[in-house]
Amino acid sequence: MSAERWRELGQQLRVDSVRASAAAGSGHPTSSMSAADLLAVLLDGGFLRLDTSDLKNPANDHLIFSKGHASPLYYAVLKAAGIIDDAELLTFRKLDSRLEGHPTPRIPPTDVATGSLGQGLPISVGVALAGRKLDRLPYRVWCLCGDSEMAEGSMWEAFEHAAFNGLDNLTAIIDVNRLGQTRETMVGWDLDRYVRRAEAFGWHAIAIDGHDVDAIHAAFEGAVQTTGKPTVIVARTKKGKGVRAVEDQPGKHGKPLDDPEEAVAELGGERDLSVSLAAPDGGRPHAFEIASHPPELPNWETGEQVATRQAYGEALTALGSSRGDLVALDGEVSNSTHSELFREAHEDRYFEMFIAEQQMVAAAVGMQVRGWVPFASTFAAFFTRAYDFIRMAAISRANIRLSGSHAGVSIGEDGPSQMALEDLAAFRAVHGSTVLHPSDANQTAKLVAAMADREGISFIRTLRGKTEVRTPADEDVAIGGSRVARDGDDVAIVACGVTVGQAVEAAERLSGDGIEARVIDAYSIKPIDAETLRAAARECGAIVTVEDHWPEGGLGDAVLEALAEADDRPRVTKLAVREMPVSGTPDELLHEAKIDADAIAAAARELAKATA
Amino acid sequence: MSAERWRELGQQLRVDSVRASAAAGSGHPTSSMSAADLLAVLLDGGFLRLDTSDLKNPANDHLIFSKGHASPLYYAVLKAAGIIDDAELLTFRKLDSRLEGHPTPRIPPTDVATGSLGQGLPISVGVALAGRKLDRLPYRVWCLCGDSEMAEGSMWEAFEHAAFNGLDNLTAIIDVNRLGQTRETMVGWDLDRYVRRAEAFGWHAIAIDGHDVDAIHAAFEGAVQTTGKPTVIVARTKKGKGVRAVEDQPGKHGKPLDDPEEAVAELGGERDLSVSLAAPDGGRPHAFEIASHPPELPNWETGEQVATRQAYGEALTALGSSRGDLVALDGEVSNSTHSELFREAHEDRYFEMFIAEQQMVAAAVGMQVRGWVPFASTFAAFFTRAYDFIRMAAISRANIRLSGSHAGVSIGEDGPSQMALEDLAAFRAVHGSTVLHPSDANQTAKLVAAMADREGISFIRTLRGKTEVRTPADEDVAIGGSRVARDGDDVAIVACGVTVGQAVEAAERLSGDGIEARVIDAYSIKPIDAETLRAAARECGAIVTVEDHWPEGGLGDAVLEALAEADDRPRVTKLAVREMPVSGTPDELLHEAKIDADAIAAAARELAKATA
Repeated sequence: MSAERWRELGQQLRVDSVRASAAAGSGHPTSSMSAADLLAVLLDGGFLRLDTSDLKNPANDHLIFSKGHASPLYYAVLKAAGIIDDAELLTFRKLDSRLEGHPTPRIPPTDVATGSLGQGLPISVGVALAGRKLDRLPYRVWCLCGDSEMAEGSMWEAFEHAAFNGLDNLTAIIDVNRLGQTRETMVGWDLDRYVRRAEAFGWHAIAIDGHDVDAIHAAFEGAVQTTGKPTVIVARTKKGKGVRAVEDQPGKHGKPLDDPEEAVAELGGERDLSVSLAAPDGGRPHAFEIASHPPELPNWETGEQVATRQAYGEALTALGSSRGDLVALDGEVSNSTHSELFREAHEDRYFEMFIAEQQMVAAAVGMQVRGWVPFASTFAAFFTRAYDFIRMAAISRANIRLSGSHAGVSIGEDGPSQMALEDLAAFRAVHGSTVLHPSDANQTAKLVAAMADREGISFIRTLRGKTEVRTPADEDVAIGGSRVARDGDDVAIVACGVTVGQAVEAAERLSGDGIEARVIDAYSIKPIDAETLRAAARECGAIVTVEDHWPEGGLGDAVLEALAEADDRPRVTKLAVREMPVSGTPDELLHEAKIDADAIAAAARELAKATA
Repeated sequence: MSAERWRELGQQLRVDSVRASAAAGSGHPTSSMSAADLLAVLLDGGFLRLDTSDLKNPANDHLIFSKGHASPLYYAVLKAAGIIDDAELLTFRKLDSRLEGHPTPRIPPTDVATGSLGQGLPISVGVALAGRKLDRLPYRVWCLCGDSEMAEGSMWEAFEHAAFNGLDNLTAIIDVNRLGQTRETMVGWDLDRYVRRAEAFGWHAIAIDGHDVDAIHAAFEGAVQTTGKPTVIVARTKKGKGVRAVEDQPGKHGKPLDDPEEAVAELGGERDLSVSLAAPDGGRPHAFEIASHPPELPNWETGEQVATRQAYGEALTALGSSRGDLVALDGEVSNSTHSELFREAHEDRYFEMFIAEQQMVAAAVGMQVRGWVPFASTFAAFFTRAYDFIRMAAISRANIRLSGSHAGVSIGEDGPSQMALEDLAAFRAVHGSTVLHPSDANQTAKLVAAMADREGISFIRTLRGKTEVRTPADEDVAIGGSRVARDGDDVAIVACGVTVGQAVEAAERLSGDGIEARVIDAYSIKPIDAETLRAAARECGAIVTVEDHWPEGGLGDAVLEALAEADDRPRVTKLAVREMPVSGTPDELLHEAKIDADAIAAAARELAKATA
């Protein structure tokens, strides 16, 4: 217990925040200064238990800055803990530095990228869930939140899920410095409102003066001693604390101090305190019992009618029997996505995330921090709800697998709100992503297996209705591959998912007119099988693409991109959904959208005529 | 006061929900039956005030089904109110019916599409804000919510904003039927937890038995009498109420009843009660005072250095002086997006939405329901947070304008979390959208003016840094247009935003090598100026596209699409951001990403050589 030392360490963290921002010429020193005392006590009070000589120690606590713009403070903390040195601190925001404007995993032990507000706490819930239910280790998760980001709904998803799961290994710290970027928050310094909200969501809440180190210490003690529920420490702080020119002043957000030298002097000058962090409790992560045999993926006879969402559920369940690191999450539609099969077989590795898609994706990101292999599923349309989390997951270098069912107009009667028609575009535009859309059950099973070993963000789009199994069970199916569903040299039709069957039907009709169409089943949309497409361009002279998706950013654009620099650049007709769909039967809607066999045959005929 | 009649009307609404779903062969009757009594009293108790002979009466109340899957109940309500007849009710979910699986504005007086849960209440907040602060009319907004969707964070954004704005013209009704799609919700029938949460967020909360019509009536009375804060009625109900085979049973979600005839008999048979809804109070919408002169858009001299985000703010402010229907919303970054200029000039038409992008877009959708012309702004990256709301806004046939600033690696030091690199792809894949990315201030001002009159979802992407004004103030700039920034016939470079300046610089260097490059400034990405691109394809032989965006779904793909069916299909080299960016200066990052003048010149040289 050393209040004086904590106060000194707090000042050091402020000084280093000011110095780093000054060296960078940008950054958020005032947002760092408000939380400095909180972090000083967390570090030096023995609460953060982290082996700095082994940052990958599975028993380490996790420290997540949900308010990622307080990165100067975060890096000052890393320096105080001996993880970086002062010279590196001053590389903040420079091109070759690991210390980016907002934290990313490029600088260990950072678990995830933050900087889009409202994400660190939901991700912390994922890490805490992993600690409690997967690793079964006593590590704690400490999450520093800004008060401005409490306006993001995703924070309340996190509050609800943390309480529902009794995550007493999670502590949120809200730095209530009152001032956002341009004005006071909606709640201001009314700590009691945060306390009542948190309590109503099932948390233990402690309101304190966030600059009173003894109160901070008592609050952390209270958090550690609380069982059965998570704790939030609601800390009243001052933005820019300690420097009169900026303390509690509006208009001081997100810029270095005008006179950093004077500020450092006012803060008592540079210090060089170093902290020996407490050691983690130790222990090894739990391993789930698995079968001794290799995965026995399901397979189906050609000609069978099976929904690809059903194949997803069956394949994931089979994989889970041989791989204990697989976990499944679902947004309360597990009987639609068929992740319910996994739940039934591997209940303790299934996480019901209810109707909270942001929290679902965040939980998956949190679990992969600890090396688990999450598959999260919902209707493909509803991943749009979590698009910011998916974008950020790529910056986190996260390995997550997402399965979106009920894609396209082919769902029928439920109407456009349930139809994913932009998902391929959205997922293609995620850095390093993999985008898959199998047309049948055998493809699906093999692609699910490939996803388990895939780095980055991978997405598989499945269908509500049954489709005919065309891919023999012993045929190779691989990410980056494709399948020639029918041969021909007069025109090529590139399809995926539900449109493959329509394309084959169109090709059969065209054959009756003497036009032999090659049908390419492009089940891997990113990466796409450019070689096969270039061969088709060379040999067939013209291409029709057809997808149950808007015209922008999906299969058609992927095909055009693959041919953009090729020597043969044939005319390409893109068939896609161009008018807002309504309710109807799947067949009616495929027809109305002009992506059925009729439309494909007509387009192919037109092209074949033009190139004949 | 007629409890018996309300009970009868409730049974009729149940019967009609069962009949409509039976006729469709799909739908959500049990989710409708739980809320039938609530709606019966709302209608027949005189609470919903709506002129059924004039559904566009601006004084009408608004009824929004946030739980859009209870569409059978909604349509049963429209029938009881005389807005549709029984024959139309039975067209539910059929191809040519206005009665889609989830409600859309195709059937008046439906304001917006619902069906993606968690959106109806935030949109209701927008309508209520319009009523209070724009129209200044006493209409009320009644929003029926499901209990499952209370897990969506967006609902709590709505709770916070409604209370913050004192929206006593808004009543939320939570149909706590306890059962989600596969299991009980996290809260179950613990009404008190909803009450405490709502109160902690500043609402008046009333818990009732949702099948006790007298209690329902008293609750609505309580809502109407409450001033200064919104009211939520937390109603304990039974899913499938009234039919033993399904009442409070798991596994009965989202399907028609097995024996609808028996169910109708159990409910007491068909009825044909009709309700004369209460009349609205009347009154005319408020009109804001405006200047008598036409808009005087700002303009700049060529050669000036101006950030396009600054031009956005200035143009919007100028337009707002001549158009009283313009309103602005911002996600607490108004000094970054420069919507602060509008706030300063037109304070009573500016809405601070804090860091709640879902609620911001939803509020814009709610305001345009009443004919207002909203422009909502934040960093372009953070619109990903609201992508589901934007997707649904298109299904709502909403007219909203979104401005995303700080696009691309050109923002520099803040790092990738703040860089929009997927926004063009995401917005292109919104049905009927307009996607604009001006390179200079004069373009920006004219495009902002064009957006005000544009239907659908329009998006303008602006830059953090200053760019040179190249477009003369008197030059035409139009949605669907483009600008030839430099002439040449050896190769074409298609750029937008910050890359236009880089492309011009590259062209100047190429000219020194005897290569004359045409630079096309494609400020309108959707619709794109296909004619100009096809001319370039014909005349220049090869094309380089360059964008500060991931390679997928943005400018490059839009160019390829425009040429896909053209007679001339030249080789196209797409320059785009291909590696995850880090922090650095804007110039460093443009160079690292290979989208600067160096990279453009190299690519153009390569192409010119290949096609020479």
